[in-house]
Amino acid sequence: MPRDPRHDVLFEPLRIGPKLMRNRFYQAPHCVGFGAERPGAEAYLRAMKAEGGWAVVNTEAALVSPEDDYGGFTTQTRVSDDRQIANLELYVERAHEHGALAGIQLLAMGRDATGMSTREPGGGATRAVSDSLWWAAAYEMDRDDIRELEDLYVAAALRARRAGADIVNIAGAEGAGLPLQFLMARHNRRTDEYGGSFGNRARLWLEVLERVREAVGDECAVTTRLCVDTLHGTAEGIRAEEEGAAFIELADHLVDFWDLQVGGETLDRWVRDAGTSRFYPEDFQGRWVRAVRSCTDKPIVGVGRFTNPDTMAELVRTRKLDMIGAARPSIADPFLPKKIDEGRLGDIRECIGCNVCISRVNAGAHIICTQNPTLGEEYRRGWHPERFSTARNAEASVLVVGGGPAGMECAITLGKRGMAGVHLVEADAELGGHFHWVPRLPGLAEWGRVVDWRKNQLAALDNVSVVTGTRLNVADVLDYGADIIVCATGSHWATDGLNGPSQSPVPGADAALPWILTPEQIMVDDKPVPGERVVVYDCESYFVGVSLAERLARSGHQVTLITPMPGPAMYLGLTGEAIEMMPLLAELGVEIVPAHLITEVGDRVLYGRPRHDPGASPAVWETDALVLTTQRIADNGLYRALKADRGALRAAEISGLYQAGDGRAPRQQVADAIFDAHRLAREIDTADPRRPLPYVPEERLLGMTAKDYDAIVDPSRDDVGRSTVLERP
Amino acid sequence: MPRDPRHDVLFEPLRIGPKLMRNRFYQAPHCVGFGAERPGAEAYLRAMKAEGGWAVVNTEAALVSPEDDYGGFTTQTRVSDDRQIANLELYVERAHEHGALAGIQLLAMGRDATGMSTREPGGGATRAVSDSLWWAAAYEMDRDDIRELEDLYVAAALRARRAGADIVNIAGAEGAGLPLQFLMARHNRRTDEYGGSFGNRARLWLEVLERVREAVGDECAVTTRLCVDTLHGTAEGIRAEEEGAAFIELADHLVDFWDLQVGGETLDRWVRDAGTSRFYPEDFQGRWVRAVRSCTDKPIVGVGRFTNPDTMAELVRTRKLDMIGAARPSIADPFLPKKIDEGRLGDIRECIGCNVCISRVNAGAHIICTQNPTLGEEYRRGWHPERFSTARNAEASVLVVGGGPAGMECAITLGKRGMAGVHLVEADAELGGHFHWVPRLPGLAEWGRVVDWRKNQLAALDNVSVVTGTRLNVADVLDYGADIIVCATGSHWATDGLNGPSQSPVPGADAALPWILTPEQIMVDDKPVPGERVVVYDCESYFVGVSLAERLARSGHQVTLITPMPGPAMYLGLTGEAIEMMPLLAELGVEIVPAHLITEVGDRVLYGRPRHDPGASPAVWETDALVLTTQRIADNGLYRALKADRGALRAAEISGLYQAGDGRAPRQQVADAIFDAHRLAREIDTADPRRPLPYVPEERLLGMTAKDYDAIVDPSRDDVGRSTVLERP
Repeated sequence: MPRDPRHDVLFEPLRIGPKLMRNRFYQAPHCVGFGAERPGAEAYLRAMKAEGGWAVVNTEAALVSPEDDYGGFTTQTRVSDDRQIANLELYVERAHEHGALAGIQLLAMGRDATGMSTREPGGGATRAVSDSLWWAAAYEMDRDDIRELEDLYVAAALRARRAGADIVNIAGAEGAGLPLQFLMARHNRRTDEYGGSFGNRARLWLEVLERVREAVGDECAVTTRLCVDTLHGTAEGIRAEEEGAAFIELADHLVDFWDLQVGGETLDRWVRDAGTSRFYPEDFQGRWVRAVRSCTDKPIVGVGRFTNPDTMAELVRTRKLDMIGAARPSIADPFLPKKIDEGRLGDIRECIGCNVCISRVNAGAHIICTQNPTLGEEYRRGWHPERFSTARNAEASVLVVGGGPAGMECAITLGKRGMAGVHLVEADAELGGHFHWVPRLPGLAEWGRVVDWRKNQLAALDNVSVVTGTRLNVADVLDYGADIIVCATGSHWATDGLNGPSQSPVPGADAALPWILTPEQIMVDDKPVPGERVVVYDCESYFVGVSLAERLARSGHQVTLITPMPGPAMYLGLTGEAIEMMPLLAELGVEIVPAHLITEVGDRVLYGRPRHDPGASPAVWETDALVLTTQRIADNGLYRALKADRGALRAAEISGLYQAGDGRAPRQQVADAIFDAHRLAREIDTADPRRPLPYVPEERLLGMTAKDYDAIVDPSRDDVGRSTVLERP
Repeated sequence: MPRDPRHDVLFEPLRIGPKLMRNRFYQAPHCVGFGAERPGAEAYLRAMKAEGGWAVVNTEAALVSPEDDYGGFTTQTRVSDDRQIANLELYVERAHEHGALAGIQLLAMGRDATGMSTREPGGGATRAVSDSLWWAAAYEMDRDDIRELEDLYVAAALRARRAGADIVNIAGAEGAGLPLQFLMARHNRRTDEYGGSFGNRARLWLEVLERVREAVGDECAVTTRLCVDTLHGTAEGIRAEEEGAAFIELADHLVDFWDLQVGGETLDRWVRDAGTSRFYPEDFQGRWVRAVRSCTDKPIVGVGRFTNPDTMAELVRTRKLDMIGAARPSIADPFLPKKIDEGRLGDIRECIGCNVCISRVNAGAHIICTQNPTLGEEYRRGWHPERFSTARNAEASVLVVGGGPAGMECAITLGKRGMAGVHLVEADAELGGHFHWVPRLPGLAEWGRVVDWRKNQLAALDNVSVVTGTRLNVADVLDYGADIIVCATGSHWATDGLNGPSQSPVPGADAALPWILTPEQIMVDDKPVPGERVVVYDCESYFVGVSLAERLARSGHQVTLITPMPGPAMYLGLTGEAIEMMPLLAELGVEIVPAHLITEVGDRVLYGRPRHDPGASPAVWETDALVLTTQRIADNGLYRALKADRGALRAAEISGLYQAGDGRAPRQQVADAIFDAHRLAREIDTADPRRPLPYVPEERLLGMTAKDYDAIVDPSRDDVGRSTVLERP
C-alpha cells in the first residue's frame, strides 16, 4: 500500500546540527535492563528499531562516572571506561547498518547512585539524601568534585564519539540526574556560584554542555534531555512556563535540538513520564511541551505514547514538535515508522500503555512487551518481529484450541511460519479469552488492542481459519484431522479462595453462594454484587483486585481490600502506577488491610489474622459481599485427557500435542502468556517444542572466547538455525 | 600462640564417603550474588575461606534446569549447561589449591522460579502458585516433567563431577526447592505416586538422590541439605521429630553425611535459617537438629551463627554435630578455623548477626559484610582480609581524627600497611562513635563486636597510638605534625526534621524543644521522653526508628511510627527481619502510619498528609513527644576548613587530606562506612587516594578476551599492583 499523503510530513528529513535525520521518528532514550552486562542484547534490540525505520535510536542513560551505579536495581550502560567502547561500537555499527543515527545518553546520577556495586556514595548538590532511594546517602560536592565530574562528562563524550555516536545527549530528565538536581532549588541549597539564583543553579548543566560541545566538535550533534515540567505545579518544581522556558533560553545556543519530556525529577516520580493508559491519554505531555515551543527555533522532540500517525503528522505539520519521540510505541512496534511509510496502519502493534516493559526493568530483569513478544529476544533467540522462517514441518496442519491472547498469538505466528493450515477454534462467540472483559475494567480500554491487533493479523492470513462459538472435547480434537494440537485453553479464577499465601482454599469460601463472587462472575456473568459493603480478597496483587475495587467503589459500594501482601497491588509499584493508584483508592474511600490472611468465611462474616503472626488475635470483618481475586486455575483438562491416551493420539496420527499460555500456567502478566505461545510457534519444528531452545547466555563464561559467542550469534541465521549450536543438555 | 587443647577436637579429620575432611569446619552453601555472572568474584571469595582453613567450601545453590531462574532478584549460579563447567572449574581449582573440599549444591526451584530471565514458568508439585513470589505462576508437573527433571539433576551432577567437585549436595532447604515442595503436604496435593502418603511425597527427592549417587559413583560424596524443621509448629510444616526424622530414616542409605538446617520452605520464611542476633542467639537451631541426631550414624553438619570455639568444640565432642557449619561466621571471618587453630581467638572477627550480607543479595546486588570489608573484593580489588602490602609511602605518619567504626578501621588498616606512625584521636572518652550507643538498642548487643574487635586490633599494633577524650580543631590538626590527615568525624541526626522525601526540614521541628528528641539525645544525653504518647517520625527506614519505637514501647510509651515509606523499616525486608519485627511492633502496640509525610509541627501537634497525594485533606496527630529519625548530617566542618586553606596545609607539610566514613557521606549501613575507611587505607599510596582504583569488571566487554581479564587479575599481585593495569580514566 502507498503511504497516506497526510503522513508525508513525518518522512521529511531534518537537520540536527551536523547530522541529517532521514525522517521524524526518534526513539527516545529508555532503559532495557541489558546495558553493559549484555551488550549483544542491547545492540540488537536498538538495531531492530533502526531497521524498522526510526531515524534516531538511543541507548539508555550511560553512566559517565566509574563511581556511579544502579547496583541492585537494573543493569547499567556505562561509558565511564575505555573498555566499554567496544560494546558501544557494536550498538552504533548495528544502528548505522540500518541507516539510523545513534545517540548515546550521558548520565551522572548524583545523589541517587546506590553504591551497591561500586561501594561509593553519590555526590549531590546538597547534603540531602535521596528522596527515592532512602538508603543512598550522598556527599555534597565541592568545587573539585564538580570540576572532576565535568572532566568525566568530557571523557565520556569523547568515548561516545570514538564509538561512532552521532548524538551525545546529556541526561537531565527521568529521575536520576545530577544536572536537574542542581537546577532545582528543592535539591540545591548551595550558597556558592552553583546555588542560589536560577542562573547559578543552571551553571553546572551549562558548563557540561559547553565543555561536551567543545570536546566533540562537529562530529556529533549535541542535545540534552530536559524535564521541562516536573508536575509539582508549584515553584518547588520545574514549571514549563517558568523554569523550563528559562533554561531553554539559557542553553539554547549549546544544543542542536531539544529532547523534552515531563514527569518528575526523582526515581519514584519520573514514571509519570511513562504514564500508563489507565491514567494518561496519548499526547498527555503536549500541554507542557507546547508551552516552551516559542522559546527556541531549534528542533524539538517530545514524547506521549504516540501510536496514531494522524496525531503525529498534525504535531509535526504545525511544528508543535519537529520529531516524534517514542519509547514505548517503539518497543511495542519497532517497525512503526516503516508501517506508516508503507501505509500498513492496521499492522501497527499499538502500545497498550500497560508498562510491563518498565516493570521488569524496575524488578532488575530485562524489558519485555505485551504486544511484541520478540522484544528483548532479538539477540538472545535471534527473533525478528516481522520475519518468520518457514517451518521445517510446514506441511503439517495445526489445531489451536482456545482463542484468547495466547491462542491468537500462536495461530498468527504459525500462520506466518507457513504451516499448511492453522485452525483456531474458540468456545465463546468472540475471540479474546479473558481479554474480552479485562478492557472493560476502569481505565483499561487500550488493553483491548491486544485482541484488536491479533484479529487484524488473523484476518490477513490465508492459511489460518478462525472458528468461534465451538467448544471442542477430546473426541472432537482427535477427529479434527490436524497433525499438531495446541491447547491454549486459558484459566479461570478459583471459586474457593485457593491462594498462594495459605497454599489452600479458604474454608467456607464458595462462589456458588450469592454473596461470594469471582471476577468472571462480575464481568462476564453479570452476577449482582449484593448490599453496600464489599470485601475484595486480593492475593493477585496486580490489576484485577484493585480494578474491581475501583469499579465497585465507583458504583457506590463501600469497599475494603484485604491482602496478604505488604500493600495493595504490589506489582503496580513496578509499573509505576502505585503513585497514582494509591491516592485514587483513598479518594474512592477504599479501605486497605495489608498483610492479612482471610482464614475462614462465615455467613457474611470473614475471619483473619496478620499473615506473619499466627498467634495474633483474630480479626473479624462483616460484609455484604466478598470478591475473590486469589488465584487463577489452569484449564488444562482437555490437554491432560488427550495426553493420557497415547494410543488415541497415535490412531489419530497426531504428531505433536502442546500447551500454550495460561492453560499451561496462569501467568500474572498476559505478556508472558503471549510470549509462551509465540515461543512455541517459533519452535514448533525443533526436536522438542515443549522446551525452549537455549538462548544466548551473555554471562561471563570462562571457557568462552569472544569468537565462541559470535559463533552462536550469527546475524544471518534464521530463527531456528541455532538449534545446531545450542542443543538442550 | 598454640591451639587451646580444648579445641583439638575441631581439627580431627573426618571421613565423608569417599572424601576426607581435614577438620570439622564446613562452609555451608550460601548465596553471594556473583554466580554465573561473575565467576571470578565467586571463585576467589570461596577460595579465601579455603585458605582460611575451612575443610569444605560450597557454592550457593546452582540451578540444574535451563528453565529455572531467579531473574530480577539475585545472580544465579548455574550448572544447567556444559558451558558453565569452566566457571565451576575455576572455583574448584582455587578451593583445592588451599586444601579444601569443594561442594556444589544442586537446586531445582520448582514453582518459585521467577521466569523473568528465561520467560518460562516453574514446574511445581501442585497447581498452587508460589506463596512468596505471588506473580510466579507454575504448572503442575506430570510424570514426564518429573522424569526430565531427574535427568537434569543427573546431568548437573555429572557436570559438577567433571568440574572436579568433591561433594554434590541436593538442595532441600532455604526457601526455593522442589524436593521440599514435594515433601510437604502443604505444597503437594497430588494424587499419584508422588503425592499423598509421606513416602509418596518423599519419592521425588529419594529418586533424585538415588540417581545422582549412581551417576557420580565413588568420585563425589553425596549429601542433601534438609530443612529439618520449617518452624510451623504444626503438621502443616516439617517437624524435626516427625517428618524430619522420618525423611532421614528413608534417605539415610543414600547420603554420605547430612547437611541440616531449620527455617522455612518459602522464600519469605527461609531467612529464619539466617536468624539475626536481634531475634536469635548463637546455636539457635540446635534444639531441632539434636532432635534427629539419633536417627542417623552418618556425620551431620548444622549451623547456628557459631563464633565461639568453646561452643563448637563442645558440640563436636558430644557428637551433637560432627561438623561445624557456618555461612555468616565464614563471611565475617574466612580465617576463623586458622585463628582457632593458632590460638588467636581475639583476632576472630565475630559475625554480629546483622544480615547486611543477605540484604544486599536480596536487593539484587552482591554480598558485603559489616565486619569484613574485604568480603566480595577478593577478586574485584585483589583484597585479602589478613594480608596487607607495605604502603609505598609507609614513611609517612597519619593522623586519623575520629574513633568511630570508620576511624578505627582506617587506623588498623594503615597500621597493618606499615605506616610509620598512625595516630587515632577521638573526642569522646571512649572509642566507638555512634556504635558506642547503637548496641544498647533492644536486641543489638552483638553489634558491639564491631567496636570490640577493632579495639583488640588497635591494641596489638605497635605503630598505632590511640588518644581519646581529645577534640582537635583546625589549628590542632595543622600543628599535629602528621604527613597525612584522615577526617573520620562521623555524623549526627538532624535536629530539624530534615529528610529526603521532602528535601527540607519540617517547619516547627526543633530538638531544642523539650518534647522533640533526636536519637543521640535519647541514647547519649538521657534527655527524658515526656508524657505517654510518642510519635517516631522515621525516614531512615532501617533500624534506628523501629528500635527506638520498640525501646519506648517497652518503657511504657504509647508509640506511633509515622513514615513516608510504604511501610516501617523497609530495609528489614531485605535483612529478613521484617517477618519478626512486624509482629513484635504489633505486640508492643506500636501504631504504624505508612506513606505519610509530617509537613508541620505545632505545639505537641503534628500535621501531615499522604506522601503521594498532595491534595488530600491534612492528617493531624496529637502527641506528647516527637522523635526524629529523619536524616543524618555529615560532621565535615573540620575537613572543609582544613581543605579551604591550602596554604596552611602546605605550611604544615601535610601531603594528603582525606575523609572517610559517615563524615564523608552518612551511609545507612555501617558496613559502607567501614568499607569506605578500609578502601582509603588500602589505597593510601595511589596517585589519588580520594577516588577508588577501578575494580575488575566482569561484565561481558566485547573488546576483552579471556586473557585480557586474566591480565588484570594476577593472583600473585599485591593489592596496589593493579594501578598499573587499571588506571582511572
